[in-house]
Amino acid sequence: MLCCGEGPAWRSETTSAVGFRLLASSGDGCARAGELATPHGTVATPVFLPVASQGTVKALAPRDIKAAGLGMVLANMYHLYLRPGIQVIRDMGGLHRFMAWDGPILTDSGGYQVFSLAGLRRLSDEGVTFRSHIDGSTHHLTPELAVEYQESLGVDVMMALDECPPHDSTREQVEEATDRTLRWAERCLTASQGGGPALFAIVQGGAHADLRKRAAQSLHSLGFPGYAIGGLSLGESKGTMLEMIEATVPFLPEDRPRYLMGVGSPEDVVEGVARGIDIFDCALPTRVARNGALFTPSGRKNIRNAAYAVMKTPVDPDCACYACRTFSAAYLHHLFNARELLAYYLATVHNLTFMASLMGRIRRAVASGTYVSFRGEFLDRYRPTDDEVRIGQKEKWLRKQRSGGK
Amino acid sequence: MLCCGEGPAWRSETTSAVGFRLLASSGDGCARAGELATPHGTVATPVFLPVASQGTVKALAPRDIKAAGLGMVLANMYHLYLRPGIQVIRDMGGLHRFMAWDGPILTDSGGYQVFSLAGLRRLSDEGVTFRSHIDGSTHHLTPELAVEYQESLGVDVMMALDECPPHDSTREQVEEATDRTLRWAERCLTASQGGGPALFAIVQGGAHADLRKRAAQSLHSLGFPGYAIGGLSLGESKGTMLEMIEATVPFLPEDRPRYLMGVGSPEDVVEGVARGIDIFDCALPTRVARNGALFTPSGRKNIRNAAYAVMKTPVDPDCACYACRTFSAAYLHHLFNARELLAYYLATVHNLTFMASLMGRIRRAVASGTYVSFRGEFLDRYRPTDDEVRIGQKEKWLRKQRSGGK
Repeated sequence: MLCCGEGPAWRSETTSAVGFRLLASSGDGCARAGELATPHGTVATPVFLPVASQGTVKALAPRDIKAAGLGMVLANMYHLYLRPGIQVIRDMGGLHRFMAWDGPILTDSGGYQVFSLAGLRRLSDEGVTFRSHIDGSTHHLTPELAVEYQESLGVDVMMALDECPPHDSTREQVEEATDRTLRWAERCLTASQGGGPALFAIVQGGAHADLRKRAAQSLHSLGFPGYAIGGLSLGESKGTMLEMIEATVPFLPEDRPRYLMGVGSPEDVVEGVARGIDIFDCALPTRVARNGALFTPSGRKNIRNAAYAVMKTPVDPDCACYACRTFSAAYLHHLFNARELLAYYLATVHNLTFMASLMGRIRRAVASGTYVSFRGEFLDRYRPTDDEVRIGQKEKWLRKQRSGGK
Repeated sequence: MLCCGEGPAWRSETTSAVGFRLLASSGDGCARAGELATPHGTVATPVFLPVASQGTVKALAPRDIKAAGLGMVLANMYHLYLRPGIQVIRDMGGLHRFMAWDGPILTDSGGYQVFSLAGLRRLSDEGVTFRSHIDGSTHHLTPELAVEYQESLGVDVMMALDECPPHDSTREQVEEATDRTLRWAERCLTASQGGGPALFAIVQGGAHADLRKRAAQSLHSLGFPGYAIGGLSLGESKGTMLEMIEATVPFLPEDRPRYLMGVGSPEDVVEGVARGIDIFDCALPTRVARNGALFTPSGRKNIRNAAYAVMKTPVDPDCACYACRTFSAAYLHHLFNARELLAYYLATVHNLTFMASLMGRIRRAVASGTYVSFRGEFLDRYRPTDDEVRIGQKEKWLRKQRSGGK
């Protein structure tokens, strides 16, 4: 594994209101702990961002996100642009006020959504024309517009517009997308010189280590306040995903936050931290919660299983979340069985509390120099979902998203 | 209007753990205020019970119900019997513990549901055989079983099994159902001599004032700790509903609580109180909330309307609920538009807070002897939903229920 280095001290960011400070590196590996300071507060890293694509973490109110122990969320420019519209949110005083979230917000630029959800894309170096997955209307997005829209939302961190190729693309296609993403990142940087949200660049490169390395080096040379690794967790194997992280991280600056986009599950987060990642976002904990899959220290449990119908204890007796402190597993089983709305709320509260608790344990392990043993113990106990099942579930969800469903 | 009388002092109930005390009668009408004391606490009347048919007020956690200002809920024996089953709830320590609600619970016996939701009924004096609306399985219910099941749930108030005829039945059919309901009430009374939940009887009689009177007198002579008026708000006009309340209340004892089942909307509650009703339950406030209809002092507003898309103020600026204190109308509009789960939560919180606040204002108006003027002012301002729209909406909902949907 090649991703370690010396963590420099706090670096002042003259062009960005967002700063990153490394506080500890795991003495026994590449994991690191730090702080991401934003205009809406500071969060400890490694940090997990729950997904609030449409300006809401599905089923939860802002106070529930805070109560779960999470301080920063991800929203999505593509979704908010289509509905309710950037102008509406700007008129309402910005995204923080609109969704009543006073902590930091990071927005994805919409690159991934344009390439995974929207229809009929016409792509050129200038930008991309696509059809809304909601009503089929035609829209145009350029790097400059992606910056303008995210600035209008008033978020803390914005992402450069990227082209995210499918995981089964040819090398030639991936190379083209990677190079276009670099050119777009540079245009975003030029467009963003207004002291607004911090602009993070995205490293693409598919499953090609050399393309990842080249992209990371090029973006590093441009100088961004943060760097993301995109285009992973899209259907490739977990092994490939981890290899690509290892192929990228060493070529990113030590003193800037590293964000692994769209990842992940508890086991992926643990592996990502081990490879030097600071920021994660993923819809998985909230999405699987709504299907009845609840995280426990021994793995995901499906509360719909008959075994839970008469279980008097909580799903996870050691969990401090409202659901586990208040209800039996049998009650949650009943709620899912009866398709009651409270089921989705309680399961989401539980899974996000699990993620927040996991991130806290991760940070403490890094700080105490024991991350390698923490990771080993966690993975020994946590039984991940079978790769095939996992990819099947994700594809089903993507199809539903494309068809405009929830 | 014929429903007034002298309110006697607190009456000790030797056969029931539930007591009712009249505290005030409106000097200017039949409205009255009191207290219903139960093993799980005392609630001030007139009281509105939100509907938790399946052991959950749809979309809310117990703490949200309390925060809305509501202290007592209605659950449904028919629904809980079918799913998760009476035995499961008994094994879990009773319904209070199962659903984590520590306030009073009233359960309906299932009579209404058997006659409105279940299929293929075979009815005799002995009892009723019906098919589950969930899986088509066959079940049998008798007055004695209705008591046994509700006692097993450990609730505070249980309802006698009744036969609830459709509102378009012939007089002969209604008379038969009314008489059978009387015979069943007597059997429930005999079966319930165990010191468990207080047994409330149900007055049927359709739209026939003489049948209502006879039923009320007969049940009164048997001596129950409380009396309900059933079989209303099923599709008849509002005028008929109010006439039937007026035809019943004078023949019920003054010193026992009067419960108008399945009613109602804000305007129906105000009219019911004016006619001497103490307890209401209705799914309407929570059901219409999930369709985006929000109560305001001037009537129901549909948050889906385009006018709300850019409204910066809350739906009701004077409302103290979490939704109105936290979010703009535009945000709620967006959540409904995007079919986000948070929409159903916030709208339900709002409508139940409105109902709780309304009940508080009603009680204060009764106590101060100004209920007639309160009622006039409220109804002058509150624009009710058109009767035709209302009945159409309810029928659509019932059809969905019958087909096993949410």
